[in-house]
Amino acid sequence: MTGAESLLQTLVAGGVDTCFMNPGTSEMHFVAALDRVSRIRGVLCLFEGVCSGAADGYARALGKAAATLLHLGPGLGNALANFHNARKARSPVVSIVGEHATAHLRVDAPLTSDIATFARAVSTHVRVAASADDVGPAAAETIAAAWGPPGQIAHLIIPADYSWSQTAIQGGAVIPPVRKVPAIDKAAALLREPGTAILLGGTAANHRALRAAGRIAAATGVRVITARNVGKIASGRSSFEAPQVPYFPEGALPFLADVRNLLLVEAERPVSFFAYPGKPSYMTPAGCIDHILARRDEDGTAALEALAAGLPDIRLPERPAPASPSEDVPLTLDHIGLTVAALLPEGALIADEMVSSAGVILNHLKSAAAHEFMPVAGGSIGQGLPVAVGAAIACPDRKIVALEADGSAMYTLQALWTMARERLDVTVVILANRRYRILDIEMQRTCAQGFGRMSNDMIDIGRPDLDFVKLSEGLGVEASRATTARAFTDQFRQALQHRGPRLIEAAIG
Amino acid sequence: MTGAESLLQTLVAGGVDTCFMNPGTSEMHFVAALDRVSRIRGVLCLFEGVCSGAADGYARALGKAAATLLHLGPGLGNALANFHNARKARSPVVSIVGEHATAHLRVDAPLTSDIATFARAVSTHVRVAASADDVGPAAAETIAAAWGPPGQIAHLIIPADYSWSQTAIQGGAVIPPVRKVPAIDKAAALLREPGTAILLGGTAANHRALRAAGRIAAATGVRVITARNVGKIASGRSSFEAPQVPYFPEGALPFLADVRNLLLVEAERPVSFFAYPGKPSYMTPAGCIDHILARRDEDGTAALEALAAGLPDIRLPERPAPASPSEDVPLTLDHIGLTVAALLPEGALIADEMVSSAGVILNHLKSAAAHEFMPVAGGSIGQGLPVAVGAAIACPDRKIVALEADGSAMYTLQALWTMARERLDVTVVILANRRYRILDIEMQRTCAQGFGRMSNDMIDIGRPDLDFVKLSEGLGVEASRATTARAFTDQFRQALQHRGPRLIEAAIG
Repeated sequence: MTGAESLLQTLVAGGVDTCFMNPGTSEMHFVAALDRVSRIRGVLCLFEGVCSGAADGYARALGKAAATLLHLGPGLGNALANFHNARKARSPVVSIVGEHATAHLRVDAPLTSDIATFARAVSTHVRVAASADDVGPAAAETIAAAWGPPGQIAHLIIPADYSWSQTAIQGGAVIPPVRKVPAIDKAAALLREPGTAILLGGTAANHRALRAAGRIAAATGVRVITARNVGKIASGRSSFEAPQVPYFPEGALPFLADVRNLLLVEAERPVSFFAYPGKPSYMTPAGCIDHILARRDEDGTAALEALAAGLPDIRLPERPAPASPSEDVPLTLDHIGLTVAALLPEGALIADEMVSSAGVILNHLKSAAAHEFMPVAGGSIGQGLPVAVGAAIACPDRKIVALEADGSAMYTLQALWTMARERLDVTVVILANRRYRILDIEMQRTCAQGFGRMSNDMIDIGRPDLDFVKLSEGLGVEASRATTARAFTDQFRQALQHRGPRLIEAAIG
Repeated sequence: MTGAESLLQTLVAGGVDTCFMNPGTSEMHFVAALDRVSRIRGVLCLFEGVCSGAADGYARALGKAAATLLHLGPGLGNALANFHNARKARSPVVSIVGEHATAHLRVDAPLTSDIATFARAVSTHVRVAASADDVGPAAAETIAAAWGPPGQIAHLIIPADYSWSQTAIQGGAVIPPVRKVPAIDKAAALLREPGTAILLGGTAANHRALRAAGRIAAATGVRVITARNVGKIASGRSSFEAPQVPYFPEGALPFLADVRNLLLVEAERPVSFFAYPGKPSYMTPAGCIDHILARRDEDGTAALEALAAGLPDIRLPERPAPASPSEDVPLTLDHIGLTVAALLPEGALIADEMVSSAGVILNHLKSAAAHEFMPVAGGSIGQGLPVAVGAAIACPDRKIVALEADGSAMYTLQALWTMARERLDVTVVILANRRYRILDIEMQRTCAQGFGRMSNDMIDIGRPDLDFVKLSEGLGVEASRATTARAFTDQFRQALQHRGPRLIEAAIG
């Protein structure tokens, strides 16, 4: 077999059966081998940031690694922003990058670059295959590194000649690691102390963890809260509510002001997203003590269940499902939140890149059927639509809903084409306010000097207006525009009933 | 003044008056300062790869640096692919990247990353401002570094607190460097030897250089050829023709087989774009000796003019202008080449990202009015439309024509929006063959194993079809589709007559 075939066989043996790719010449042997190693599903994306975001979404949705296949340094460069988000979400990803043939590296060809430096921007794990015989073993190492725990981006750089040369060696199978369950005695002793809070993060903001945390809270009075930069967070009207730390310091500081002991479950001490003149970076008060209940590499959910063991089960007061609005009035964020909350099917997965609209809508979603949402863990916008692609490939039986701001949608809109090609069951809602609205807020916060004409133009994305219906149709996804509450409800209901991709431009002026 | 104002004042003093930007919170003071330092033109792009490609196009068109303003590591990440092309084109670019406030860096905020590592992927010049007082001097240093010669990407990373703090210090003016004219005696002695060729590259493939080279060739019989990875190449029916080294080794090896002495004018020994099994990387024959006529940092044009001094002027045999086809027959690449050659206005600037279609069309363009074209110098696709944006901002009096393959257009299509917003005089032609056609060719070359169903799918971008008319209209640019020779001629003529952006999807099945 060729090195490329050894690579694919090793991926299959390591449980990696999906590859989001945007290949070039140096990856042609990998592509050709796809037909000879049939258990790998190749998913073509028209831009590398879609590949990296989709791998992140796949990992968050399914808890296992997909691969990406990218072309040389610049191809990897285009993937870095969403790899940054994946890194912060601790998503396992096997990042395979083609390199020039080794003999070609001494001549400075146009596409020659230092691929390892590109790779190190998002990961300390960068492995370069050393021969055709090394491709399989290097791939097995890379898969193991990606698993962690916690998950990480693990890069494997493969020179083209090692892909096209023959080898008899395949990498070994990789067993997914079992996360350790930490000791809980210290935490148990703190639960009944006043001023103690449990902070959920990492993989421990799921429905099981929430249920256990709810029992602990009911029995001990401890407060349970959720971190911000989490890969996937469970929510819904029948779930125990563990409110998220607010985004801005003005909200986060009072929210955490009374906390004296913070039990960290796969989380770190909360920090402000950005720094502001005269504001602290850490959001907990001076004197608050951090206690690690579960490290990032441990099983926080099992730790919570151990703490809850023997405590009585609880009946959660189920919040009522809202009615979806049907008035013929201009559409607002509240209407959108109510409609999504009313109609969202149980088990739905939400790709959340709502940016300035997130607060209002997530608040309504607490009344929706049980679901999970996936925020922008690393703060780099352009992940929402790609994450939806990956989640839909990972979980074909769950409805995927992408709630996406208009400005952020424009970074990786190419994701819609892959949704159309793969007939992914994704409903995309574009929250179109025609503005980098979050920067309005940030401008006031950081400067308080307001906008002049030129600076205002740098925030305004409404000249010319983006027409998301045309953009979506141009990429093969059926689309419509809603400007009233009634139209949005009708269109969102239809989109949910339809199996396959749909886009709604929700004009919220 | 604030550090941000000092930065802008220093840019103006250094001759940098245009900034392609996609700002975020850490750059808000820069944005706010735009209204107080009025001689900087801010150009908003909806994706960072448009910013970096536009700065590259601006530099190639005008021979001077623009700035880019990007948001933290991930924002810079999105710009790297086109910075790679700019690096290979030796374009001067002042890359300004906002960083978190210094006190915030010790907490691992979601958007925290190692920005310098991102930056080093495309440049060795990475300067981090050390205080508000240092912002101005650091900016002046960065501008000087960008100039070179040769030009380079010079990065300046500015923590937000240095932008918002007060300073009295502004950076000094930066004088554009004068390139040295190299000694020419050694080259002069070789000109009449059999097997000598002059290879034009760098800034020395312009009309003046071609004219001088033509006189030298006529007087001495020396052969004159042009390198491939050049930022801007002059061409047209009244120009001396210096054929480019062919792209593939099968063409390049015989093309260079007789060369014994290669006089390099801001160029390096030609290499193959990719490596192929059993093929050499260098395209010149064994025994061919390289002689540097002008280094990358020297003035190759002046060196050629010095060599031509005293030689008789020549009359070039002007090639006839072709007629534009008007038949009602399915559109082909030849029709497109003939039409563009027939109608292109003198002085037009072509952003060339035609990939597999380049050979046919560039051959026709030798019969066009005098023009220049800007190829993908670093081989990373996704530069064509952004380069057109930058060239149009740089040269508002020249017609810009972007000849763009469909696959490559999809990496940075957001550039169309900036064309619409800034009313740039760009005619975009999308060569729509619905395939990563170059990979068909490369697959045959590297594997010769043909495609199976799965591997074929990874090259096929025609399922679903991309509708570039809708995509363009969605981004605010009027568009049409041509499927016949006559329709293309009509639409291209209209687009050229119109002042402002237009897009034509040229369907070439």
